[in-house]
Amino acid sequence: MLHGPNLNLLGSREPEHYGHQTLEEIDEAIRSEAARLKAEAECRQSNHEGQLIDWIQGAGRDFQGLLINLGAFTHTSVALRDALAASKLPAVEVHLSNIHAREEFRRESLTAQVVWGLISGLGARGYTLGLTALIERLRNDGKETR
Amino acid sequence: MLHGPNLNLLGSREPEHYGHQTLEEIDEAIRSEAARLKAEAECRQSNHEGQLIDWIQGAGRDFQGLLINLGAFTHTSVALRDALAASKLPAVEVHLSNIHAREEFRRESLTAQVVWGLISGLGARGYTLGLTALIERLRNDGKETR
Amino acid sequence: MLHGPNLNLLGSREPEHYGHQTLEEIDEAIRSEAARLKAEAECRQSNHEGQLIDWIQGAGRDFQGLLINLGAFTHTSVALRDALAASKLPAVEVHLSNIHAREEFRRESLTAQVVWGLISGLGARGYTLGLTALIERLRNDGKETR
Amino acid sequence: MLHGPNLNLLGSREPEHYGHQTLEEIDEAIRSEAARLKAEAECRQSNHEGQLIDWIQGAGRDFQGLLINLGAFTHTSVALRDALAASKLPAVEVHLSNIHAREEFRRESLTAQVVWGLISGLGARGYTLGLTALIERLRNDGKETR
Amino acid sequence: MLHGPNLNLLGSREPEHYGHQTLEEIDEAIRSEAARLKAEAECRQSNHEGQLIDWIQGAGRDFQGLLINLGAFTHTSVALRDALAASKLPAVEVHLSNIHAREEFRRESLTAQVVWGLISGLGARGYTLGLTALIERLRNDGKETR
Amino acid sequence: MLHGPNLNLLGSREPEHYGHQTLEEIDEAIRSEAARLKAEAECRQSNHEGQLIDWIQGAGRDFQGLLINLGAFTHTSVALRDALAASKLPAVEVHLSNIHAREEFRRESLTAQVVWGLISGLGARGYTLGLTALIERLRNDGKETR
Amino acid sequence: MLHGPNLNLLGSREPEHYGHQTLEEIDEAIRSEAARLKAEAECRQSNHEGQLIDWIQGAGRDFQGLLINLGAFTHTSVALRDALAASKLPAVEVHLSNIHAREEFRRESLTAQVVWGLISGLGARGYTLGLTALIERLRNDGKETR
Amino acid sequence: MLHGPNLNLLGSREPEHYGHQTLEEIDEAIRSEAARLKAEAECRQSNHEGQLIDWIQGAGRDFQGLLINLGAFTHTSVALRDALAASKLPAVEVHLSNIHAREEFRRESLTAQVVWGLISGLGARGYTLGLTALIERLRNDGKETR
Amino acid sequence: MLHGPNLNLLGSREPEHYGHQTLEEIDEAIRSEAARLKAEAECRQSNHEGQLIDWIQGAGRDFQGLLINLGAFTHTSVALRDALAASKLPAVEVHLSNIHAREEFRRESLTAQVVWGLISGLGARGYTLGLTALIERLRNDGKETR
Amino acid sequence: MLHGPNLNLLGSREPEHYGHQTLEEIDEAIRSEAARLKAEAECRQSNHEGQLIDWIQGAGRDFQGLLINLGAFTHTSVALRDALAASKLPAVEVHLSNIHAREEFRRESLTAQVVWGLISGLGARGYTLGLTALIERLRNDGKETR
Amino acid sequence: MLHGPNLNLLGSREPEHYGHQTLEEIDEAIRSEAARLKAEAECRQSNHEGQLIDWIQGAGRDFQGLLINLGAFTHTSVALRDALAASKLPAVEVHLSNIHAREEFRRESLTAQVVWGLISGLGARGYTLGLTALIERLRNDGKETR
Amino acid sequence: MLHGPNLNLLGSREPEHYGHQTLEEIDEAIRSEAARLKAEAECRQSNHEGQLIDWIQGAGRDFQGLLINLGAFTHTSVALRDALAASKLPAVEVHLSNIHAREEFRRESLTAQVVWGLISGLGARGYTLGLTALIERLRNDGKETR
Repeated sequence: MLHGPNLNLLGSREPEHYGHQTLEEIDEAIRSEAARLKAEAECRQSNHEGQLIDWIQGAGRDFQGLLINLGAFTHTSVALRDALAASKLPAVEVHLSNIHAREEFRRESLTAQVVWGLISGLGARGYTLGLTALIERLRNDGKETR
Repeated sequence: MLHGPNLNLLGSREPEHYGHQTLEEIDEAIRSEAARLKAEAECRQSNHEGQLIDWIQGAGRDFQGLLINLGAFTHTSVALRDALAASKLPAVEVHLSNIHAREEFRRESLTAQVVWGLISGLGARGYTLGLTALIERLRNDGKETR
Repeated sequence: MLHGPNLNLLGSREPEHYGHQTLEEIDEAIRSEAARLKAEAECRQSNHEGQLIDWIQGAGRDFQGLLINLGAFTHTSVALRDALAASKLPAVEVHLSNIHAREEFRRESLTAQVVWGLISGLGARGYTLGLTALIERLRNDGKETR
Repeated sequence: MLHGPNLNLLGSREPEHYGHQTLEEIDEAIRSEAARLKAEAECRQSNHEGQLIDWIQGAGRDFQGLLINLGAFTHTSVALRDALAASKLPAVEVHLSNIHAREEFRRESLTAQVVWGLISGLGARGYTLGLTALIERLRNDGKETR
Repeated sequence: MLHGPNLNLLGSREPEHYGHQTLEEIDEAIRSEAARLKAEAECRQSNHEGQLIDWIQGAGRDFQGLLINLGAFTHTSVALRDALAASKLPAVEVHLSNIHAREEFRRESLTAQVVWGLISGLGARGYTLGLTALIERLRNDGKETR
Repeated sequence: MLHGPNLNLLGSREPEHYGHQTLEEIDEAIRSEAARLKAEAECRQSNHEGQLIDWIQGAGRDFQGLLINLGAFTHTSVALRDALAASKLPAVEVHLSNIHAREEFRRESLTAQVVWGLISGLGARGYTLGLTALIERLRNDGKETR
Repeated sequence: MLHGPNLNLLGSREPEHYGHQTLEEIDEAIRSEAARLKAEAECRQSNHEGQLIDWIQGAGRDFQGLLINLGAFTHTSVALRDALAASKLPAVEVHLSNIHAREEFRRESLTAQVVWGLISGLGARGYTLGLTALIERLRNDGKETR
Repeated sequence: MLHGPNLNLLGSREPEHYGHQTLEEIDEAIRSEAARLKAEAECRQSNHEGQLIDWIQGAGRDFQGLLINLGAFTHTSVALRDALAASKLPAVEVHLSNIHAREEFRRESLTAQVVWGLISGLGARGYTLGLTALIERLRNDGKETR
Repeated sequence: MLHGPNLNLLGSREPEHYGHQTLEEIDEAIRSEAARLKAEAECRQSNHEGQLIDWIQGAGRDFQGLLINLGAFTHTSVALRDALAASKLPAVEVHLSNIHAREEFRRESLTAQVVWGLISGLGARGYTLGLTALIERLRNDGKETR
Repeated sequence: MLHGPNLNLLGSREPEHYGHQTLEEIDEAIRSEAARLKAEAECRQSNHEGQLIDWIQGAGRDFQGLLINLGAFTHTSVALRDALAASKLPAVEVHLSNIHAREEFRRESLTAQVVWGLISGLGARGYTLGLTALIERLRNDGKETR
Repeated sequence: MLHGPNLNLLGSREPEHYGHQTLEEIDEAIRSEAARLKAEAECRQSNHEGQLIDWIQGAGRDFQGLLINLGAFTHTSVALRDALAASKLPAVEVHLSNIHAREEFRRESLTAQVVWGLISGLGARGYTLGLTALIERLRNDGKETR
Repeated sequence: MLHGPNLNLLGSREPEHYGHQTLEEIDEAIRSEAARLKAEAECRQSNHEGQLIDWIQGAGRDFQGLLINLGAFTHTSVALRDALAASKLPAVEVHLSNIHAREEFRRESLTAQVVWGLISGLGARGYTLGLTALIERLRNDGKETR
């Protein structure tokens, strides 16, 4: 799980859009859900675009899928889009708020075009639902290729 | 669950975008998942915009939430958008394929601005995940207002 | 009088935009005003674009003028525009709320270009004022052509 | 009643758009209708944007509502829009011709976004209908706040 | 042969654009031409978008090709476009008037992108020429796949 | 029949768009069809815009109608459009491929606005169908004016 | 001759665009040229849009043609455009500098669409050439209508 | 100091955007600040674009710098922009509210391109800060050129 | 004098836009006017863009100024614009009809940005007026540089 | 005080836009001015967007207000905009040059919409004026909330 | 090597953009470089679009690669683009000046989308570098296919 | 030589666009070519925009020219553009694939406007050709200024 810029502020920043849960609580929920599904999840956050690119590039070694919320970089970063497209891993993009119901410049997602799927507006529950879909797909792909 | 135009063709129409499951199989999966969560789901499909508006208007009497995939009307119907906005029920919009990765005119969703959340691109699994989110929210809302 | 999609919800839907009168009350007011002016009015509503086209096509047989509020179809339907343009009857378009003061996509009216006049934002009173203008014009036209 | 630029030419200027009545005849009709409704109307015309702003600013002292046709300034004057928005009086905007059926640059009304309602395309009859709506609203508001 | 909205008015509606032939006369001409080419044609018209979608979906059972004039839906209906794209049948789109020489919003055809070919502006003769092309292609395809 | 730039390459250039017939074969088919209809056709090709303008200007002396495929000039040449508009002859524009289903810049046809009709996407058959329509119209016009 | 805003500054304002002649010198040249052609010219300047509209409205009484340079109002004033269109007099619009070679917003002329002709970029000589054309046309029109 | 249209209403008009100070209080503050800096300031307001142009043209005689808030004309007047550009005086443009955080059409400033600097959104304090910058610059320029 | 495409048709082509004079008559008028001003003019016409470029490139050897009406190439040819910009000769662009009052795509002139001045809409008289301005300027330039 | 990318080059980079003062001299002036107003200022610069976000997020602990010049990130960074919006501190945005008078892409400021005020084009003096406004506001806010 | 319109003027036309070398010198340099690489180059120039199309169509017979600078046609000619796309030869497009740093309309290259590579802004050296790349690629392709 | 984001993945990422060479092989080729030309090259790569800005700012101390491929930052980073513009060193921008033949958002290069030249689409050979041009220019400049 990769969190983009300003998501470390969750819980205190504009709770009418982003809810009252902190990033730690969300990460904990993700790890529990992974455990329940007999998988493992690692959660990281950065305000640095370059750092996120480095992590996506390196993910292929240690992980089998990506759960991402790249925050404001979603709308502006061609470099992250390229990193995701270059990655061999399936990715699910999650947004806490419904980005389609907000400002014009938040409606376009550059990364949405290169991920497998997108969940927006279901609050923190979106993360664990995205994780479920990702794990199920990885297991199905596994079966098919076996 | 309301399905919009051409979704009755699922299984045979462009399977690279929409998968191999038929509408009957998807509806069956939705009803089972609802049953597993101790809820009930009813599934309907129509190619007629007016029929879908009538159903959304009437949903308040018999249902507590809406799961919708309005197909091509998603991108063109202000009337369905108005019907959803007028409805008191929370709604989750689901798309089988990732609409952000397709033709320009399929990237705008008029209805996305008035629903609670949106899932796109996770295949048929998106329906049951959307249903889960919807039922959990309805139960949480119930607790809060009790 | 032809009412478009979702106008059957009047009274309960977003009263800050559309007022507290129900469609029945508005229709009753239209019929009374017509009676006061020694004319007759018939009121119909549909959520189906095709039904509204059928009614406009058939109006030439039984009516002398059209009072219309096509709701959301105002902004999207070229087919209704064509039906109005093909009709020989003068038409007045009425909107309860001031469409120019709302969302961008509600500011364009495709049908406004083919009607005789337009009243927007005077609430339910707009209907009876539109009716007055229509009846007066029909009587003037009658005088001129006699 | 405030008339904007070139409306003093009514009766001789492009009668296919603006009809054969002169401004004096229209003003007389407005004053009679006001008298019939036991109210009083004053009519002024200017080709000077600044003069019209001065009148709108000063209207709060002597009047209870505004009936306006700002002519070409409708489409270009942010200053008149601001003056109307700053005014406490309800306003009805009237256009003799149907502005939606004319040149592109005449379809946008900057002032329409800050008035209570708009009548366009019913010819000179639009003025007296607008006056009726305005007086009725002012009497209703009076009742409500009494 | 599927005719879209308002085409049932042919003969009386704006004859300078659409000619003096009625829909019955055109349908008769299509059926004769089909007979002359030892084929069979069936002609239907509807003002309802949903009805036209139903017919296109069902055409695969009874027909081998589609001749369509979807009227105003040509410019606005993504749902009809999807139905045509999902259909296995080759289609020819016909317009009585030259749509490129008319209003801006009539120049874009959403459906043109998914049909085999398009004829516009040759009057009623376009239908029978389109039919000829369609039948010849079907016979050629037949030969190739035999 | 006037062929525009690069059409002399037919048969070898992108056969998935333009088919396998050479220009000579197409011209031969046009001449035969003309003969079958007891008319005469002359076919010319040029890569030079000025040459095509000269031919259109001169066509009035020797011909009664124009069948044109101006290739890439269709999308860019105002001068050819003016030459066609100045010509007294009715013209039919033909495109081998469906120009609406290709690149954005190939969808606009400057000349389509000044011709009588347009056929696009029926392959080489479009030429002979266009010729048929043209000859029939010329004979009908002849009857009418006799 | 009507000069618009800031043209009273001629001679000192940006001489690389507008030359070194003062407004008085230009007006003197216009009056001499008129005298040479046995006609009479009157020259006025104002920074007030309303004043210019008043003058154009009143010009019909005392003048037979209009020579105008409305300065910056050329690009923004629909009201002046309407006044010119309503005027019965032929008008020639003159610009000292070549407006097509300057900033984007100076390239559109709202008034150019309603005048008889336009001269731009020939410096102060444009005024007397425009006057010549205007007087000759008025004399020709006179001959024709006699 | 030149104030544009509707700024005479300050204190009563939309105080959430423009604050509670009246124009008289602001003018007084400007004059005091000027006195404190051993300079002199004169303050004028007009709703007439032409009047403001006259003042800017005449300012060169009596003043050494311009402090301006042209209100709504900021966004629409090319004539005021030209007057400022033609003036030899340095100018500072001030806006009480942050124009970048408001309606789309209030974000463009035509005059901002020809002034020395711009202050927006610091409330009435912006005027005296702008005055300070202007006086300091005039004194520095003076030193440099001495 | 260089005439662009289709101008050889003058006199017969759309006389409501281009007048009744033939190209020969216009050329004769240009040569007479030149003679009257003790200068010499040569007139050429071509429908070939390349030919016109060749002539402009070669004009520097034999001529001192250019009078041009490039017809439809005015709106589309960057190559002619470059040829004019590379030429050392001053040029005046003339249009018989007022290009600002016609179709959208005829309002932009690519060449207008590189010529000295432009005359549009004064009919055939524009040529001789343009010639006068050109000759006077060349004589003034001559004086200045002597 | 936060300086964005390339501002460490001040003094040597394009002095016609940015003046001759180095960043050290500007920072020194800011600290002096703060001292004069009995406040304290800290100045930092970074070319890294992520670093600037970290600083804005952390500013709430140690500072009461923000003075920012985010350089090129002003026009492109939604992430910095979000960080500023999430911050509880009032901010003043300063630009050395007048950004409205430069390239198109430098005219839009994403951050301007979430700061309290903006100063552009007054050179290095803009920093100390912005600081003054910020400190005064903080003291006024302090008084109000005490 | 094909040179487009106005490139025969090299050396005298705007040397700040295009350098001081004449076309003959550039062609000589290309031929020498070819000789050095044991290949042969032929250089041609034309101001006629049709001539350039003819040459590209014919190049397949005598050449193995194309080095092109189509000048102004780069930005406007769909016909040249089609000719290049139809050609089997690899092409390198060269521009003397950096087209991205010039006027808006010179930034789009229609042909760039169908060539192998593009060099812009390295002056006359770009031609010989492009030639080098082309020859190396042709030799590599040769090795691969042997 | 500066490589931007994701270029460290060369050889494995989308080889149909970027070829099979790894970044190490390319860097080795650059260093050899530099050695062959008796110069020295240093190669660096980063996914961090800030890091690249730091390097460009510092390059003036140790280098005489820049060879850059900023990857995705080419299309989005105004800050890198500013850093290049502020740098005194001539730069050549290289792209492995032809950016004009790819997605719309990859066609605009913000940095191309401030570099000396651009090579796109010649594969890895573009780097060494760019290096050659750069070194030659530096030697020529050296000669000129000696």
